[in-house]
Amino acid sequence: MQTEGRNAVLELLKTDKAIDKIMLEQGAQGSLSRIFAEARKRDVRVQFVSRAVLDKTSETGHHQGVIAYTTDYAYCELEDIVAAKGKNGGFIVLCDSIEDVHNLGSILRVCECAGVDGVVLPKAKSATVNEAVIRISAGAAQHVKVAKVSSLNRAIETLKESGYWVYALEAGEQSIYQADLTGNLALVVGGEDSGVHRLTRELCDGTLSIPLFGKVNSLNASVALGVACYEAVRKREKL
Amino acid sequence: MQTEGRNAVLELLKTDKAIDKIMLEQGAQGSLSRIFAEARKRDVRVQFVSRAVLDKTSETGHHQGVIAYTTDYAYCELEDIVAAKGKNGGFIVLCDSIEDVHNLGSILRVCECAGVDGVVLPKAKSATVNEAVIRISAGAAQHVKVAKVSSLNRAIETLKESGYWVYALEAGEQSIYQADLTGNLALVVGGEDSGVHRLTRELCDGTLSIPLFGKVNSLNASVALGVACYEAVRKREKL
Repeated sequence: MQTEGRNAVLELLKTDKAIDKIMLEQGAQGSLSRIFAEARKRDVRVQFVSRAVLDKTSETGHHQGVIAYTTDYAYCELEDIVAAKGKNGGFIVLCDSIEDVHNLGSILRVCECAGVDGVVLPKAKSATVNEAVIRISAGAAQHVKVAKVSSLNRAIETLKESGYWVYALEAGEQSIYQADLTGNLALVVGGEDSGVHRLTRELCDGTLSIPLFGKVNSLNASVALGVACYEAVRKREKL
Repeated sequence: MQTEGRNAVLELLKTDKAIDKIMLEQGAQGSLSRIFAEARKRDVRVQFVSRAVLDKTSETGHHQGVIAYTTDYAYCELEDIVAAKGKNGGFIVLCDSIEDVHNLGSILRVCECAGVDGVVLPKAKSATVNEAVIRISAGAAQHVKVAKVSSLNRAIETLKESGYWVYALEAGEQSIYQADLTGNLALVVGGEDSGVHRLTRELCDGTLSIPLFGKVNSLNASVALGVACYEAVRKREKL
């Protein structure tokens, strides 16, 4: 969706809507530079273009030097994901600081293929489901439930109270092959560099590791999640 | 490595060396446009730059409007990979038309982590191990054996004669959970769009599929390979 005009885009920047990019007129000053500063603060991509490009792109004819693109993605609530629980119990994935759109897209594709009930993202420090993520997910984003929560840690506490076993995918205590993984299960996957944050990891019931046989010390986030989800699937479906 | 000058780059384009990119002087004509045509034919990335950039980048001072970048990656032979066989038998991955550098980098990372003996690439219609692939593989490319072969089908025949069971990772006969996967094992992974070519697939001893529980009809190539390799690891290491 296209949002045009200075005030409309400034208001948009105050919401938590997924803004794909903002096109700004080259050499812009005044309130346009305020839009630029706000966009930078929110890590929104800004593209500088000529007035002619904006004139051509504008749907309203009143762009005032700025057009923003948003994705209307229908998020759901954590409760909807819990309610979607199947015959083998609940199966949920939580993303801790997955800020890269490629990683988020791949993770959504893995979750959809493995039959996960839904994916939980924090509102801050996370990629949102924008056009790029939907494309990279091969469309899976449209078929898997995604909830955005204010606090990932609070979501983990809620899940534990609802009878879920919550594991961080991190080198640590037991391997995915030793763990049970049946029943109500939630897996927390961390970002490429940071992994799962310490406080979040400590809230979990434990960590699950994937054995590594080489010199590189980790798998890519979506591959690690794929391996773990499918080991869970194998145990849950008795394959 | 940097190769400078018209003849040197034209000769380089005749070899099968991994060329990362070619920098060409803007508005170039004559033999420079021949270099451009040859580069396009080989899918080499061409960047047009000013003479000033070439002057600054040149190591020899004689760039003649063109500088090419290659990666000196030490490939090995198929025999070296077969000889690297461990206590659980051989474990090899063959890539059929993996043309995307992201996919190849991720595949090398998966293979290194799962302890695969080596990866086989065809010389034609395949990404080569360049700087981007090494970076995306998180350095795994430097630790896993990679062989480039003239014919993937001939490599499969050689492996079958050497006592390997060769499976194409494709929707089909049996799932990775039904298959044995112990002993000498080779997995063929195909490109994102094309999958494993029909002739190649028919040469294999069978196909192995990963059960899908959603609406999207496939996993990403490196994720699928990760899931299959780790199911093999589980069975081979009795985890």
